[in-house]
Amino acid sequence: MSTVTAAAPSYNELCRVWSRLYRYNHLASIVGWDRNAMMPPKGNDARAAAEAELSALIHRTRTEPRLAELLRAAEQELLTDVERANLREIRRDWRDANALPEALVEAKTLAGAKCEHAWRSQRPANDWPGFLENFREVVKLAREEAQLLAADSGLTRYDALMDRFEPGVRAADIDRIFADVKQWLPDLVSRVQAKQRDEKIIAPVPPFPVAGQRALNLAVMQLLGFDFAAGRLDESTHPFSGGVPEDVRLTTRYRAEDFAQSLMGSIHETGHARFEQNLPREWLGQPIGVARSYGIHESQSLSFEMQLARSRGFVGLLAPMLSAQFGAQPAFSADNLFRLLTRVKPGFIRVDADEVTYPAHVILRYEIERALIEGEIEADDIPALWDEKMQAFLGLDTRGNFKDGCMQDVHWTEGAFGYFPSYTLGAMYAAQWFAAMRRATPDLDARIAAGDLAPVFAWLNANIWSQASRWDTPELVRRASGEALNPQHLRKHLETRYLGS
Amino acid sequence: MSTVTAAAPSYNELCRVWSRLYRYNHLASIVGWDRNAMMPPKGNDARAAAEAELSALIHRTRTEPRLAELLRAAEQELLTDVERANLREIRRDWRDANALPEALVEAKTLAGAKCEHAWRSQRPANDWPGFLENFREVVKLAREEAQLLAADSGLTRYDALMDRFEPGVRAADIDRIFADVKQWLPDLVSRVQAKQRDEKIIAPVPPFPVAGQRALNLAVMQLLGFDFAAGRLDESTHPFSGGVPEDVRLTTRYRAEDFAQSLMGSIHETGHARFEQNLPREWLGQPIGVARSYGIHESQSLSFEMQLARSRGFVGLLAPMLSAQFGAQPAFSADNLFRLLTRVKPGFIRVDADEVTYPAHVILRYEIERALIEGEIEADDIPALWDEKMQAFLGLDTRGNFKDGCMQDVHWTEGAFGYFPSYTLGAMYAAQWFAAMRRATPDLDARIAAGDLAPVFAWLNANIWSQASRWDTPELVRRASGEALNPQHLRKHLETRYLGS
Repeated sequence: MSTVTAAAPSYNELCRVWSRLYRYNHLASIVGWDRNAMMPPKGNDARAAAEAELSALIHRTRTEPRLAELLRAAEQELLTDVERANLREIRRDWRDANALPEALVEAKTLAGAKCEHAWRSQRPANDWPGFLENFREVVKLAREEAQLLAADSGLTRYDALMDRFEPGVRAADIDRIFADVKQWLPDLVSRVQAKQRDEKIIAPVPPFPVAGQRALNLAVMQLLGFDFAAGRLDESTHPFSGGVPEDVRLTTRYRAEDFAQSLMGSIHETGHARFEQNLPREWLGQPIGVARSYGIHESQSLSFEMQLARSRGFVGLLAPMLSAQFGAQPAFSADNLFRLLTRVKPGFIRVDADEVTYPAHVILRYEIERALIEGEIEADDIPALWDEKMQAFLGLDTRGNFKDGCMQDVHWTEGAFGYFPSYTLGAMYAAQWFAAMRRATPDLDARIAAGDLAPVFAWLNANIWSQASRWDTPELVRRASGEALNPQHLRKHLETRYLGS
Repeated sequence: MSTVTAAAPSYNELCRVWSRLYRYNHLASIVGWDRNAMMPPKGNDARAAAEAELSALIHRTRTEPRLAELLRAAEQELLTDVERANLREIRRDWRDANALPEALVEAKTLAGAKCEHAWRSQRPANDWPGFLENFREVVKLAREEAQLLAADSGLTRYDALMDRFEPGVRAADIDRIFADVKQWLPDLVSRVQAKQRDEKIIAPVPPFPVAGQRALNLAVMQLLGFDFAAGRLDESTHPFSGGVPEDVRLTTRYRAEDFAQSLMGSIHETGHARFEQNLPREWLGQPIGVARSYGIHESQSLSFEMQLARSRGFVGLLAPMLSAQFGAQPAFSADNLFRLLTRVKPGFIRVDADEVTYPAHVILRYEIERALIEGEIEADDIPALWDEKMQAFLGLDTRGNFKDGCMQDVHWTEGAFGYFPSYTLGAMYAAQWFAAMRRATPDLDARIAAGDLAPVFAWLNANIWSQASRWDTPELVRRASGEALNPQHLRKHLETRYLGS
């Protein structure tokens, strides 16, 4: 916010502090990206020390005692609507940093790091009892955290955790939405599988040289509007979207026998990137200028990866780009490529799941983690529940297979509870955005097939990117699409794409 | 320093502050490297703001008022010799940050930035009068700076400036050394030119593809012992050696028509890098663990680039590596390559100079800048002096050619006076190191020719790298080579290599 209001000295001082934090976070983002994408191994210890020093500085800045009084005073000052929204976000960030005693934050970080470190070898060894020893402590501390956040916010314990990822969304909403999905999803999965059973798919013939994959990814990112004067694409072991809104850093990884993983991953990250690159410039540096929530961010990556890039029209654009890079192959016909990219197959692993079965993986985790945080079950109860739900949702038997079951994710391992719903909320928001886009632009699919993606970008920019953190999530959804989150849009999208109905 | 002495609370507290500064400087180095080697253009404004915030933080940390009292108290504490040396370096760094009033520092930074910005277009336009308008202010402020530093340290004004780059070295030493060089250098240049006049040199035939140049550089860096687990080689417009001792970041630039520039540049930077990579681990994080002085650092890059890489034995190692990368060429014979890399030709531009004529460029600048700082001449007098000295030292007429004369360097433009001697001190130190090495290892040249570089690295490690900032520069030189800086080693080296005598 560049305007300084003479009548709001406390608000202005808060803006100065959060400007400073924005710059410290810029440093943290860039050295964090460097650690993952560039740093040689022996740099690790010194980097860890430097990053810890910066984290401590950021923490000190967010917890200065004078901030509480400044926040109180700023509430009484005469502010514009936008300034008031910014003050709300400043308070959110301040509460995030101040709601928990430092001893608990440290204990939880340590317990999570210890559990994660052991998990790296316990998971391949399928060692659930060993994992459980560390994990019980993680759960205990996460419950304490939830209890304190609940007392501070007046929310239930699970809602208090989830509110940090998805402001304004409550478990009561999720229950209603997921109950709906559970009614139609298993049947939908069966019908799609039956329809796909006799489809013939030609497998692409490797190798796909890394240089060609990189050139393909860059060309597709260009088509998707990524601004290469304000960002880069590099490689890392675990792909991510990092950097800062002014300079977005995407990473991917390449396997010569499979181009699709890197390509679809890059498209996914480009969705995140365009949100960041198009946040309103005049708000950058203040909390109101930050992208709204994990679920909304995921709605952008899934708008690109699922709604757009797996649409029949867009696959038609991809096909000749593949042939241009790797030479023509029967597998690169648009029809075959579409079948390849929309293949549905229930499996054990969430991160490998297709868009039809993915919600089952999330609903299962949500139900378990919510009960765990609310104290209705214990960590020991997880495997039995996991198996029961996998059987019910996807017809898969996971008994005794902990490593491809309840030990597969890093989230719980590190103590991150309340995050999983964001993935499926993101998929639902994305379907809802595209439904709204089709109302506004009835020939949307024809335009996409013709390579005209402008209506997609214009809608997302007007309704999502430019809004940043101006509203909480439910309000953003209503303003963008004219209704509250409605899972019927995801259902309709899946039925149309996978059943042709 | 990992040991904490219970009896030295003030010293220990100073160590904690300088540990924190070490970590802040780590962040500054990495984001600075990123800005030059990785950042896309639109990242610039946000990066500048983030780096300025970090600079301000570092400045506040180095100028906390309590540090003066801690320094006084620490002087009275019982310390080991090494701790006392570290305290001396802490005080040096503290004085650097505190000797000057902030208003002067800011004014000088601004004047330097303004002068440098205009110089970018004034230099190509040969616009000396335009340059002079800004430059007079730079000189005025540099004199004020020198005056204050002199009052603070008890040194003369020029010595006070130079002491920041070359601790313990005085203009009186430089005068004596450069007077010696001036006696023999012009004649040496003439004799080398006469000898080389009839030499036949076969020019290498381009192109030299960038990928091949990069592979060649990496192979040569490997041969030179660069630790790729603790550093990287990337590209940037202006090559530099950055990063941190634990993670050294070198850059180079490639021109397809010339492999030598990038190759010799990479070898030069590898010399800097090995110093950083081999600083004693137990001192890292404290000022005593920092590489000693600009001149000593340059002695490492020149030990690699000039003493080692242009020796007949090493060129014999390079020759087959060139053929392996670019295919065999008559120009790649070891004899031809040696003639190519040791060609001497007086020219206008310092950075393009060969090692024989280079000292002339430095002596000329030293004599002018010293007189300028001591107030014996004014900025207006520079062109006439420049021309007079270029005529005397190298026989070149620079009248009216400001852009290839006194306007060619960024150092004065930005107000960095007292730095130039470091280049030639570095060349002299390097010659002195190799003379000492040959005394310790009489068959040194045969071993280099056989590809055994271990004696070079072992000597540099024992005498330079491992000493970090344990001693001031003159003491380091005496301990390493058994005598004070002696320009006869450089003379002997040049005569041997270029006259075969």
